[in-house]
Amino acid sequence: MVSGKQIETGAGPIRLGMVGGGQGAFIGGVHRIAARIDGEYALVAGALSSDAERARASAAELGLDPERSYGSFEEMAKAESKRDDGIEAVAIVTPNHMHWPAAKVFLEAGIHVICDKPLTSNLGDAKKLAKLVEKSGKLFVLTHNYTGYPMVRQARELIASGKLGDIRVVQAEYPQDWLTERLEASGQKQAAWRTDPKQSGVGGATGDIGTHAYNLARFVTGLELDSLSADLTAFVDGRPLDDNAHVMLRFKGGAKGMLWASQVAPGNENALKLRVYGTKGGLEWEQEQPNHLWFTPFGQPKQLITRGGAGAGAAAGRVSRTPSGHPEGYLEGFANIYAEAARAIRAARKKGGKLAKDVVFPTVTDGVEGVAFVEACVKSSAKNAAWTKL
Amino acid sequence: MVSGKQIETGAGPIRLGMVGGGQGAFIGGVHRIAARIDGEYALVAGALSSDAERARASAAELGLDPERSYGSFEEMAKAESKRDDGIEAVAIVTPNHMHWPAAKVFLEAGIHVICDKPLTSNLGDAKKLAKLVEKSGKLFVLTHNYTGYPMVRQARELIASGKLGDIRVVQAEYPQDWLTERLEASGQKQAAWRTDPKQSGVGGATGDIGTHAYNLARFVTGLELDSLSADLTAFVDGRPLDDNAHVMLRFKGGAKGMLWASQVAPGNENALKLRVYGTKGGLEWEQEQPNHLWFTPFGQPKQLITRGGAGAGAAAGRVSRTPSGHPEGYLEGFANIYAEAARAIRAARKKGGKLAKDVVFPTVTDGVEGVAFVEACVKSSAKNAAWTKL
Amino acid sequence: MVSGKQIETGAGPIRLGMVGGGQGAFIGGVHRIAARIDGEYALVAGALSSDAERARASAAELGLDPERSYGSFEEMAKAESKRDDGIEAVAIVTPNHMHWPAAKVFLEAGIHVICDKPLTSNLGDAKKLAKLVEKSGKLFVLTHNYTGYPMVRQARELIASGKLGDIRVVQAEYPQDWLTERLEASGQKQAAWRTDPKQSGVGGATGDIGTHAYNLARFVTGLELDSLSADLTAFVDGRPLDDNAHVMLRFKGGAKGMLWASQVAPGNENALKLRVYGTKGGLEWEQEQPNHLWFTPFGQPKQLITRGGAGAGAAAGRVSRTPSGHPEGYLEGFANIYAEAARAIRAARKKGGKLAKDVVFPTVTDGVEGVAFVEACVKSSAKNAAWTKL
Amino acid sequence: MVSGKQIETGAGPIRLGMVGGGQGAFIGGVHRIAARIDGEYALVAGALSSDAERARASAAELGLDPERSYGSFEEMAKAESKRDDGIEAVAIVTPNHMHWPAAKVFLEAGIHVICDKPLTSNLGDAKKLAKLVEKSGKLFVLTHNYTGYPMVRQARELIASGKLGDIRVVQAEYPQDWLTERLEASGQKQAAWRTDPKQSGVGGATGDIGTHAYNLARFVTGLELDSLSADLTAFVDGRPLDDNAHVMLRFKGGAKGMLWASQVAPGNENALKLRVYGTKGGLEWEQEQPNHLWFTPFGQPKQLITRGGAGAGAAAGRVSRTPSGHPEGYLEGFANIYAEAARAIRAARKKGGKLAKDVVFPTVTDGVEGVAFVEACVKSSAKNAAWTKL
Repeated sequence: MVSGKQIETGAGPIRLGMVGGGQGAFIGGVHRIAARIDGEYALVAGALSSDAERARASAAELGLDPERSYGSFEEMAKAESKRDDGIEAVAIVTPNHMHWPAAKVFLEAGIHVICDKPLTSNLGDAKKLAKLVEKSGKLFVLTHNYTGYPMVRQARELIASGKLGDIRVVQAEYPQDWLTERLEASGQKQAAWRTDPKQSGVGGATGDIGTHAYNLARFVTGLELDSLSADLTAFVDGRPLDDNAHVMLRFKGGAKGMLWASQVAPGNENALKLRVYGTKGGLEWEQEQPNHLWFTPFGQPKQLITRGGAGAGAAAGRVSRTPSGHPEGYLEGFANIYAEAARAIRAARKKGGKLAKDVVFPTVTDGVEGVAFVEACVKSSAKNAAWTKL
Repeated sequence: MVSGKQIETGAGPIRLGMVGGGQGAFIGGVHRIAARIDGEYALVAGALSSDAERARASAAELGLDPERSYGSFEEMAKAESKRDDGIEAVAIVTPNHMHWPAAKVFLEAGIHVICDKPLTSNLGDAKKLAKLVEKSGKLFVLTHNYTGYPMVRQARELIASGKLGDIRVVQAEYPQDWLTERLEASGQKQAAWRTDPKQSGVGGATGDIGTHAYNLARFVTGLELDSLSADLTAFVDGRPLDDNAHVMLRFKGGAKGMLWASQVAPGNENALKLRVYGTKGGLEWEQEQPNHLWFTPFGQPKQLITRGGAGAGAAAGRVSRTPSGHPEGYLEGFANIYAEAARAIRAARKKGGKLAKDVVFPTVTDGVEGVAFVEACVKSSAKNAAWTKL
Repeated sequence: MVSGKQIETGAGPIRLGMVGGGQGAFIGGVHRIAARIDGEYALVAGALSSDAERARASAAELGLDPERSYGSFEEMAKAESKRDDGIEAVAIVTPNHMHWPAAKVFLEAGIHVICDKPLTSNLGDAKKLAKLVEKSGKLFVLTHNYTGYPMVRQARELIASGKLGDIRVVQAEYPQDWLTERLEASGQKQAAWRTDPKQSGVGGATGDIGTHAYNLARFVTGLELDSLSADLTAFVDGRPLDDNAHVMLRFKGGAKGMLWASQVAPGNENALKLRVYGTKGGLEWEQEQPNHLWFTPFGQPKQLITRGGAGAGAAAGRVSRTPSGHPEGYLEGFANIYAEAARAIRAARKKGGKLAKDVVFPTVTDGVEGVAFVEACVKSSAKNAAWTKL
Repeated sequence: MVSGKQIETGAGPIRLGMVGGGQGAFIGGVHRIAARIDGEYALVAGALSSDAERARASAAELGLDPERSYGSFEEMAKAESKRDDGIEAVAIVTPNHMHWPAAKVFLEAGIHVICDKPLTSNLGDAKKLAKLVEKSGKLFVLTHNYTGYPMVRQARELIASGKLGDIRVVQAEYPQDWLTERLEASGQKQAAWRTDPKQSGVGGATGDIGTHAYNLARFVTGLELDSLSADLTAFVDGRPLDDNAHVMLRFKGGAKGMLWASQVAPGNENALKLRVYGTKGGLEWEQEQPNHLWFTPFGQPKQLITRGGAGAGAAAGRVSRTPSGHPEGYLEGFANIYAEAARAIRAARKKGGKLAKDVVFPTVTDGVEGVAFVEACVKSSAKNAAWTKL
């Protein structure tokens, strides 16, 4: 078995806190695994639920020191910032509307923030947050986790190196089927908050998964969006937010694209897919088979580039843990964001510490753009899909 | 080996003529194979090229009686309609702009017409042709060949029988890559006429392949289009017709869709694909793997329905020649249109002959709608993708 | 649409007769389609069934001249060889045990033979037939149809040109599932004769499909078998012939292989697959996706070579009818054997006519070897899988 | 996003030591990640290399207390067993020949053992180890990691519940290509020890990967092997151990199978695959797409059962961390063995602690059988593939 690349720097784990992610949550558990995989973090504090009892129980389950299980994130920021062994970074994994208030108190307390996407539930908050990040001088890492996949990095590298020529067409899609019926009516917690404008903001599928697809397209191609035309629909009766988004894209420089996000497409689990076509070649990548990247230099046979295999370059290799043929998945991709964040935090630990150039993670700027994308979609759709600038 | 269904009715072949399809053509040869596969037709006359020398050579190559190799389709219609053994049907396989003039003379001569798509190069001709067909009482079969695939029939049957519930989302796409560079400048005949507005009409990729995708979506779902919003692009410098079409669709009754047609997407050969999602389930079909149909009843595992296999019903079985696992392809799908046409022509041979109800083929009405689709796309695109009725 | 290669030589169809293939048969219909696709043959005579009534009805259905529908193949050979317009070639599509007696009378009557596989039901007959073919000077074409697939030709060309280096490992398999239950007890005709030693010979799955897999491996690699070790099983109670064959292969020169043929593997329709690995690269091909060939030069990304696409060479191109992305299937592959036979027959029509070097078809020699393979498998299995020479 | 199952029991991490796995190793890093993912273990001690300097450097990199970085495993066992906070379990990740001596000292010191496969480099050691495990009363977990994949558990559950009926045919294969050339001559560490009989034992590919394929077949089907016939080859000049193994299998009760393991098959990365066919259905699973399981009830369409999706049962669900469509891979599958081990160790912590019935992991018995399989293959091959009992 050929040896893969391992990320185990180990020089003392980063002390991490968490806001949200108590029992019944989904993404909190994912963040915790992501933080653990490479041994870079130690979870030492939490405000795991707004429900005090659930917070306590969740903390106990995770083996947190009861004293560092807080009833609110405000309390946690205050207490932790005073401790010598206080948290260096916090993971915010609440519903969208709490991202801004939570991020605010930690940044103001001088604590780095790792935050789930979308950045906030509205553009106003997003912009305030961006300003605060800049002012604070703290790190802000947005977990657009799909950018952590090695073959997504590979795709980006191929395009950056000119292998596709000038990009013409970008097809992004993210279909799911779990909201085909009115699951939120059953009390299922994930469905409930994700279809609730108060917690999610103005976008339904657009905010939950459309932002991922948009971010992925941006990340891989480097193209900037000029304007979009969106037709959003809530197919399920009584659902206040869109569950299907059809969007046409015009990028600066002339490339065009389509983006489809849906949560009502039976037979699709988490089928994020990106296809990019340029003057010299094309590439295709699917999240459910993330170790594969299809690359066609125009006029040559299609090539299957695999994680760790022939044709995979440095950008993929540095975020890879095992040899080719040993599938890495969603959790490893997510963990790569945490690994990049760890590199940045370690660099920030030292006075004048410098971050290596190849470290890449989504920032508050990507987050603002994502929220702007959601709001532009909603605005366009309200105007019968009129072309709308970001 | 399990026995498949064979179509060999044999009661005297149908006498067929052909307009176009001389040396260097592509689709003419396909029509001839399609006509031969089931032994239903005998090609006995032709006006195979507007170039007299090429017409003669092509006819010789095909073993036509030189006397029935004509210099023009007008001449052919005239001569054949006077013969006792004259052609009963003609296949029109010229560039688009000649469909209408050719069809006209044969219909007026009392000869059935099998015509390649798109119906005509403009909507005016299309409507005149539709009127003439009705008046003539003759059969008019449009070779939207992809509707001939057994698993496309199966898909249609699944939806018609309610297995998908109410349709919500329709995703149609037809990417190719053969026009990624300016092939027409090299003199390649196929590229030349297909990118020439005089021969093709106002649509490039939209007319050549977008019409197929649109027709397929219509055929399978039975939905009628209300309006569309199209963003057409000619990415290759100097190309007067679109080579990439992004279209958003709104169907009557509330379903929505997207259609993407491209001839500049490297790595795509002939990747027509249709996905349909309803309240109860979803289905997916790809032209390059035509013997497979993916069907997901919501809440159950995805099923692979194969041509001739378990789960395939009567609609697929009756246009199938071999057992499951013996791949049938493009030519057999095309031949199914000819087989359906043969059934119709044989029924028409008899006074009061009645066509069996399960015989299905694309008609002049589908053709008019296809041309209307192209013109609506072009009109919408010219108005910055404004929503446009068909 | 890029123009594909078309085979329409047309210089007067070859007059063809058929033995077997009456109503209820499977492979007879396939042969007829194969003969029709390129317009090279005219079916003009038949002894379509040993049942006189069925023979008559079948002939009528096919539009044969009743006078040329014969009650026996002996009668047919006699009558046709006397006619000026008598058949030039005969297709023998009966159960295996009739191949030899039928072929005998036609060869002796000076008529070319196209014969289904396996060559005969026993090796004695096979050798007699081979001798007779040589003596007769007539053509003998064995329809090992899978060698007609363009990408099988491509695979062969890759190996012949040294792209795989020295071959080390050959994995051939041909699983089906249609005999998982005792279908022959239901009276299903195909199952009945294929599991009957009197009609099939000593091999069940081994003879019916194992011979295809073996022939394919031989055709593509050019390797000769040294010896084999076979473990044959009849899993279904009361079945006298094997329905599953496990075989280890040793080729001359040191390559090794495995061959698996099964008719009791649920979920497999007609899943013939060949994989070949050498010192410099590997390739993989599957019958159910025949337009694709996977080729991996060692140390480089896997390549998808498609029929008609980049990377496909002359050997594939000359047996291809349509452009890349237009799937050709089982019937076209079968038709390629008929097209090659037609080229050979046309060359033989002329005194001193010479056959082009690139014309390739399975011969009586391949047939003898196939029957020898079956008998060696049976012999080996009877001796507890002892290594057995062919 | 639907919530997945998370494994975070947290009641105080299990103190773990490691033998082997220093810099340059592959599988040691995998074990460490597997131990970290669910937060169940804390790595607190190690004898990471027989090279003292490398051991020290590796320990530092991992943040181990220098005092608990030992120069030999004997020393470590002795020291740790005396500490109050000594290790509860040790992971042995050395080359094969060291498994037995290392396991011995830890078992004798009363420490649970988690050991990489194959169990030992020869059957004698394996049997001694099995005896010692029994005597010691300690847990022994063999990391046949592929049994940890949720869909492998699902496959096992399907068969155990009778959904496939009586098993007839088992096809196991494990091709790779990384030893196509003589990599060991380059000094690559992984290649060097895996092709060295002193470190690996008598099996090359057979021991390294054949044991995985065999174990997987046994685990999923529950069948016991009666005898095997093996043809092993070292294709690469100068390689003392087999790099390709062809094996025919006869199971008790009448099922038959084939097993192919190869490290010289270009285009294969880590392509472990299992197919099982019974009287009522069949299933297929591939390691490189581990979240998918194909299941065909005979006479029904093939179903795609996905991890976390419809059709996936309790056996898969309990070793799953994320919702369907979020691919889990090799590391999570490996981690599932560690999670099962953790459950067993926690149960063993309590006097009279009882292990839940659904906890499943490979034991020393599986290990003995694996080594017996390797030795039987070698013995059979030496006797010209004579049938050999385990």
